[in-house]
Amino acid sequence: MYQKLPPKGMRDFLPREKSLRDEIARRIRAAYQNSGFTEIETSAVEHLENLSGGDGGENTKLIFKILKRGEKLGEALCSAQEAEARENDLADLGLRFDFTLPLTRFYSNNRNELPQVFKAMQLGMVYRGERPQKGRYRSFVQCDIDIIGDGSPLAEIEIINAGTKALRSVGLDDFEVLISDRRFLLALISACGLPPERADEVCISLDKYDKIGRGGVIAELAEKRLDGAALMDAVEGVSSAPLLVRANPETAPSLNQSVIESIRRYSGEAAENLATIALALAAAAGSGDPIKLRFEPTLVRGMGYYTSTIYEVHSEKYGSALGGGGRYDRMIGKISGADAPAAGFSIGFERICDLIDADFIQSEKQEKTAIFINSDSDYQAALAFANAQSGITSLFAKKKKFGKQLQTLESEGFTRFYDASKGEYIAKSE
Amino acid sequence: MYQKLPPKGMRDFLPREKSLRDEIARRIRAAYQNSGFTEIETSAVEHLENLSGGDGGENTKLIFKILKRGEKLGEALCSAQEAEARENDLADLGLRFDFTLPLTRFYSNNRNELPQVFKAMQLGMVYRGERPQKGRYRSFVQCDIDIIGDGSPLAEIEIINAGTKALRSVGLDDFEVLISDRRFLLALISACGLPPERADEVCISLDKYDKIGRGGVIAELAEKRLDGAALMDAVEGVSSAPLLVRANPETAPSLNQSVIESIRRYSGEAAENLATIALALAAAAGSGDPIKLRFEPTLVRGMGYYTSTIYEVHSEKYGSALGGGGRYDRMIGKISGADAPAAGFSIGFERICDLIDADFIQSEKQEKTAIFINSDSDYQAALAFANAQSGITSLFAKKKKFGKQLQTLESEGFTRFYDASKGEYIAKSE
Repeated sequence: MYQKLPPKGMRDFLPREKSLRDEIARRIRAAYQNSGFTEIETSAVEHLENLSGGDGGENTKLIFKILKRGEKLGEALCSAQEAEARENDLADLGLRFDFTLPLTRFYSNNRNELPQVFKAMQLGMVYRGERPQKGRYRSFVQCDIDIIGDGSPLAEIEIINAGTKALRSVGLDDFEVLISDRRFLLALISACGLPPERADEVCISLDKYDKIGRGGVIAELAEKRLDGAALMDAVEGVSSAPLLVRANPETAPSLNQSVIESIRRYSGEAAENLATIALALAAAAGSGDPIKLRFEPTLVRGMGYYTSTIYEVHSEKYGSALGGGGRYDRMIGKISGADAPAAGFSIGFERICDLIDADFIQSEKQEKTAIFINSDSDYQAALAFANAQSGITSLFAKKKKFGKQLQTLESEGFTRFYDASKGEYIAKSE
Repeated sequence: MYQKLPPKGMRDFLPREKSLRDEIARRIRAAYQNSGFTEIETSAVEHLENLSGGDGGENTKLIFKILKRGEKLGEALCSAQEAEARENDLADLGLRFDFTLPLTRFYSNNRNELPQVFKAMQLGMVYRGERPQKGRYRSFVQCDIDIIGDGSPLAEIEIINAGTKALRSVGLDDFEVLISDRRFLLALISACGLPPERADEVCISLDKYDKIGRGGVIAELAEKRLDGAALMDAVEGVSSAPLLVRANPETAPSLNQSVIESIRRYSGEAAENLATIALALAAAAGSGDPIKLRFEPTLVRGMGYYTSTIYEVHSEKYGSALGGGGRYDRMIGKISGADAPAAGFSIGFERICDLIDADFIQSEKQEKTAIFINSDSDYQAALAFANAQSGITSLFAKKKKFGKQLQTLESEGFTRFYDASKGEYIAKSE
């Protein structure tokens, strides 16, 4: 039986969708390239052992695994019949589920050929075998930037600056950047009498604060036999607040010292780090509005590999996160054996495609000329005319119902109509 | 064990390679779009039953198969232990090995939303589990155009015109278009006393004529218990010759009537078809050289689904085929149940990337400005300056060995250097 639909959770893109997606990608690329990021491409097919190891967290359960081939599969199938069949014996490759792992492998393999401070961009499909649901796909485009080799806050500053420029370039500007530091979170957890070695578990619950609230977090921690009351008091004592304030609209923004002080009560390093980043970004927009930067004490960001700064672009208007990332200074060393500080940011490309105003993106309408052929003897004239044009041209055999044909082509975006046998344009009123 | 290299036969692309490949793709896209083709995107992951059925030929043996997931895999593994394990029971998806099958599925699924004459373009990765060897990859970019819904020679004319423009747009112009018609081949095979129902087998051997010669083809046919002597006489009697000739360089090219007549001896339909296409393409280059079109009686093109016109862009200079295609009028009907005439052309993107002169492609050097920061207090000034520029800017902490740092950045393509604390450009002689 031949299947007409794409596989479950995957998609084809019609010309209109494709051109909109390409234009969005083009703008994001341009914004990133102008900020000094260079694009690389990693293989979409990865070693399964790389994907399964490492820090992929929940994503490792969602890998599309590729069967071994030839003799290797034969051997695997034979042993599957004898012993308990294990799926990882049958597969040796898998589809990438994000760009962080492939980037790490790429960097380990090509380190000597890359700049000492490597500003990388990746844009492409990643694959996760999620339960399909509205707005969730099993193959989707991610767009990541990463800076490897810079341990200073300059990396975060450039990433947040470039990331917000990329979002603005596609017409999204009603957002805040929520920011925190894992060192603050860890200090907070310790200060509230919770065991630091179980910080990851605490963070998983804390991450849900905006959805399940104080009571929910405390209940979830109680299930883990942890007392979350003190943590909730502390979190609520450190206010979620803008890191930059202005005395009046004419003056330059300055640091919100009271927030910095409340962070410093738990972690001096986090306070210094966030103050430096905020102050630098105060200038980011030039004469326009500065980036709205909000310290958010309950911000966790899921991945276990983050080590200090974490950030998430959040939009009340769109009701969702548009992207996020953070610093992961130990991951590259852990996987490649040679340490390198790193920070990254990932844009939720599919979310953005859903939110974007197609008219904003495709405002310039291109001239498209349809060239009509009445008989085989028109081919030469039609082709010579077409090839002499600089814009889009397409040849069509003239149909008997020509009025209908013109109408259809107009609806497909054609703006001019040329009769090859007469050697003249056709007035639209025809 | 963590693997640093990409999977066997697959590749990552460094910034320089990636930007060259992207520029080549951009030019090919632009040439095709200007000729009226619109880009679509099909899922790289396909239903395995689609890939395994159809007309994929040898390629169906090279499919990367994706393991079933969850309960379905559990069931498959249980039955694999009881009975003889069959690999197709374990897998339900696979990676696409070309664009023709996904296009067919796409067209069947979206027919009502597409123009009646649908001019489609696809560019992306396809996957084949080939034995890896030099210049052969297991994942590689293909770039296809297809016209669905036009049974007239206009489709071939537009495809060959656009295809050769795309090749010229990346600096490749020393090529001929070899052309033939499957109807000519079938008539020739019948006329030489060979069984028409075994035409595919005959074609497989004839296809090797340029490599193994007359003796080789006859020997191979003899193994199939077929007498190829008459066929070889006939093939050698119909000369491989240009379809267009010029009396002198000032006159327009005209049809090479003697070749057309020799084709007509076997198939009037093929002769008319090739004459129409050749005459139309005589005008394709405008005032420049016309497309070199050569009738090649031994041209077969591998795929069994071609029904009439077949063509291949061949270059003596580069010693290889740059692309090829043909008309496949029955494939869409066979798979989707509803007939539609179709013709296509595929560019060998990887081959082209290997052949191309990188300097030709990346002739315009962009301004790239490195902005240096001496201390944390420079961040604001650096960012404000960077964001006010229109070109590429990138921020760097100034190093102690500044001369070395400048040299390295210059080698990475940076053309200007700005000191954020002084607020001035740095003379290169520094």
